[in-house]
Amino acid sequence: MRIDLNSDVGESFGRWELGDDEAMLALVSSANVACGFHAGDPTTIGRTCRWAVEHGVRIGAQVGYRDLAGFGRRFIDATVRELTDDVIYQIGALQALARAAGGSVTYVKPHGALYNTAVHHEGHAQAVVDAVAAVDPTLPVLGLPGSALLAAAEAKGLRPVREAFADRAYTPEGTLVSRREPGAVLHDPQTVAARVTQMVTDGTVEAIDGTTVRLEVDSVCVHGDSPDAVAMARAVREQLEAAGAQIEAFS
Amino acid sequence: MRIDLNSDVGESFGRWELGDDEAMLALVSSANVACGFHAGDPTTIGRTCRWAVEHGVRIGAQVGYRDLAGFGRRFIDATVRELTDDVIYQIGALQALARAAGGSVTYVKPHGALYNTAVHHEGHAQAVVDAVAAVDPTLPVLGLPGSALLAAAEAKGLRPVREAFADRAYTPEGTLVSRREPGAVLHDPQTVAARVTQMVTDGTVEAIDGTTVRLEVDSVCVHGDSPDAVAMARAVREQLEAAGAQIEAFS
Amino acid sequence: MRIDLNSDVGESFGRWELGDDEAMLALVSSANVACGFHAGDPTTIGRTCRWAVEHGVRIGAQVGYRDLAGFGRRFIDATVRELTDDVIYQIGALQALARAAGGSVTYVKPHGALYNTAVHHEGHAQAVVDAVAAVDPTLPVLGLPGSALLAAAEAKGLRPVREAFADRAYTPEGTLVSRREPGAVLHDPQTVAARVTQMVTDGTVEAIDGTTVRLEVDSVCVHGDSPDAVAMARAVREQLEAAGAQIEAFS
Amino acid sequence: MRIDLNSDVGESFGRWELGDDEAMLALVSSANVACGFHAGDPTTIGRTCRWAVEHGVRIGAQVGYRDLAGFGRRFIDATVRELTDDVIYQIGALQALARAAGGSVTYVKPHGALYNTAVHHEGHAQAVVDAVAAVDPTLPVLGLPGSALLAAAEAKGLRPVREAFADRAYTPEGTLVSRREPGAVLHDPQTVAARVTQMVTDGTVEAIDGTTVRLEVDSVCVHGDSPDAVAMARAVREQLEAAGAQIEAFS
Repeated sequence: MRIDLNSDVGESFGRWELGDDEAMLALVSSANVACGFHAGDPTTIGRTCRWAVEHGVRIGAQVGYRDLAGFGRRFIDATVRELTDDVIYQIGALQALARAAGGSVTYVKPHGALYNTAVHHEGHAQAVVDAVAAVDPTLPVLGLPGSALLAAAEAKGLRPVREAFADRAYTPEGTLVSRREPGAVLHDPQTVAARVTQMVTDGTVEAIDGTTVRLEVDSVCVHGDSPDAVAMARAVREQLEAAGAQIEAFS
Repeated sequence: MRIDLNSDVGESFGRWELGDDEAMLALVSSANVACGFHAGDPTTIGRTCRWAVEHGVRIGAQVGYRDLAGFGRRFIDATVRELTDDVIYQIGALQALARAAGGSVTYVKPHGALYNTAVHHEGHAQAVVDAVAAVDPTLPVLGLPGSALLAAAEAKGLRPVREAFADRAYTPEGTLVSRREPGAVLHDPQTVAARVTQMVTDGTVEAIDGTTVRLEVDSVCVHGDSPDAVAMARAVREQLEAAGAQIEAFS
Repeated sequence: MRIDLNSDVGESFGRWELGDDEAMLALVSSANVACGFHAGDPTTIGRTCRWAVEHGVRIGAQVGYRDLAGFGRRFIDATVRELTDDVIYQIGALQALARAAGGSVTYVKPHGALYNTAVHHEGHAQAVVDAVAAVDPTLPVLGLPGSALLAAAEAKGLRPVREAFADRAYTPEGTLVSRREPGAVLHDPQTVAARVTQMVTDGTVEAIDGTTVRLEVDSVCVHGDSPDAVAMARAVREQLEAAGAQIEAFS
Repeated sequence: MRIDLNSDVGESFGRWELGDDEAMLALVSSANVACGFHAGDPTTIGRTCRWAVEHGVRIGAQVGYRDLAGFGRRFIDATVRELTDDVIYQIGALQALARAAGGSVTYVKPHGALYNTAVHHEGHAQAVVDAVAAVDPTLPVLGLPGSALLAAAEAKGLRPVREAFADRAYTPEGTLVSRREPGAVLHDPQTVAARVTQMVTDGTVEAIDGTTVRLEVDSVCVHGDSPDAVAMARAVREQLEAAGAQIEAFS
């Protein structure tokens, strides 16, 4: 049993620090590094890449809408052309900083509003996929199972990587419960760790109505910017290892 | 007799257009493409790279200070670390967009205030050189003969490319007359073209005091953003070709 | 017969120039001055305000989404709170620059995507209205007749100012034909001028299907950033004056 | 004995939080609110103004260079015209948000690199002063005693407010010890509090060489963004009150 744990890192910006990247990079196997459009100045990105290389953690491009003020969490009605070029730009910038750190970019994951939009918005999903294909068609794309993004990736011949969220509630249909619903986000590290362990060892998760749902995933996202992010990631890692699972970047 | 003509392109930003890039790319042999920090949104950059590829023009990274409002023309007292990472970021972003256009980045030239600062500011000159070396040490660096930038490039084992300016007056010492002095910038296309032709065929230029100065250059910059930029570039190209010189990217 | 002509000005940004503001300000009676979020650096704004004061033209705040790269033409899914504060910020910034120029802000008009969104999006319409009420409840709000914006303005006790577009086609229902439809935008200065004259002298416009539609308007927008903007504004002004109408800021 | 305590607040930006503004505003008498150019998005600024009003704290405009990535801590070689307009813009934006919160802007203090530059750079000092005079010549200007800024303010007829720093070492000449020197910044809350109390009750401070220096100040700055900022401000306030001094905004 092997599972990839991914987390958002490199999301500081200049004077503003966010998350304890160095601690998270000791716990996860894949680092979604911000690329400067929603967060991450070049020096933050470079330092984060060096830490990822030191910890043997895979570097991925966490690409987002051009929106520092909104942290990439607001939908922007960009044209497909604009978004494609914005994503190419971001991946390339990270590639150079990763290379300077002795590493390389090995996957792409959209951030925030772009992630959510690419679940259903075919134009924006296609923009991400076209950008990845233009830069390097060997890069896998992380996204939600069933999303327009993973469908477009597959259609383009890119490798889709199915992702689950450690701290999110699921519907009986295996989709995420909207953040606007009560109980959508789980906060207790041990509960979260137990759910992730069940996902990995049993291929299931308990839905919000108590039923058990099948969930096939290649990677599990643990959030990096909440106050107890490190504690939660540590709990997840410990329970997984106690259950005999190996934390390892998806192959 | 061969000479490289380079020009700044890709300096539009979103709704704002600057220069007639497509016309300039039919006349020059090297394109200094803006990388988004002083000018150039990703879609502009991508389109400019496609035009450069179509015209067989070499693509270079025109890197600058992070200053859209000032168009990179204002010195910013960044640390060497910040500037190094900013330059790595810009080169990488352009590399990806150039690759998506079927081309590649083959040299680096600082823009505006960074160009002028790197003539004498050893920290900022070193930052540019360190960035280039980190991304790709085979990339030549364009700069002013005698500048701290070219000295640092040479010390680091990068190839320095000596540049002259088509429309600028020179001192008897072979340096540029400051823009604050009268007569520092020349405006008549035929006069400018004749000067460039003399630089290339004779290795000399007439200084502002009327004396003749030796000037060894590998590339000549023709400006791209003035109203008569295309007319001037065309005159330069025609006089050079009439004199038997070949316009060709530096090898 | 009196009519207000308004136009977008102050939309240059740093090195990038857009429109011939000085010429437009000799022709219109109300100046929608950009406030820095979609266009307009402070120095451009200040200079535009001085020209408006010199020409006796009323200064209005042209507020937009925070999106320089998209020129405010892309919907951004900001919260009502964020947008309200963004609009307050923009109005205040312009107030200070207008005051420094010897003028004052006397109305508010949303720009681009915010203008279009505020036709139907009640949250964003309310945000604009709440911002105006918080800064100065005596400021009128320009918008499309029948829009959510003007309804919200009226409900809040602000003065709604109904606007028509000189160069846009109208449906038989008196709404704008979508820019995606053929014939949505008119380009011939004399045709446009004749339509505006009919709006003002007769209170009607010929719809795209040839029928005549009633159209009650307080202000007519003439675009300022197209290549022939000045020629069109001049034609509109001349025909209006020839028909005995007075161009005058709405009271 | 009365003294003003001022602190930098409103320096969060979007997702990024900095400082505990609400706690600081319960301890100081003057709030230097960021205006969006080096920090402070409009929603952060508006919320900070509401807190200031609730606590009866005076609101000042903390104006800076346009440099979010550098947090306004890097000199930018702007023209006097650009800087003047940038400062007018910032003050106006804050005025509107302060007014919406039921308060008003009652002084101006430059931030970071602009503060330090305005000590000696006459052009940038003049830009700040010209901006204040253009917006509202009744606004006092906070700065270092002996600075070009306060000299220019006085020459322009603005009220100069002399400021001391609670946690900084002083030279025997009564100027600040450069941050590059050892011992330039003091960290122990009780030591800092004792120094401020001596400044206020005795008009002196112990210089870094042990000598006693006269120091006439109208306001003392307590930093707001270090981890122990609140503890330090509380210690300063408590010692001052124990010594019989009243914390009160400068009149």
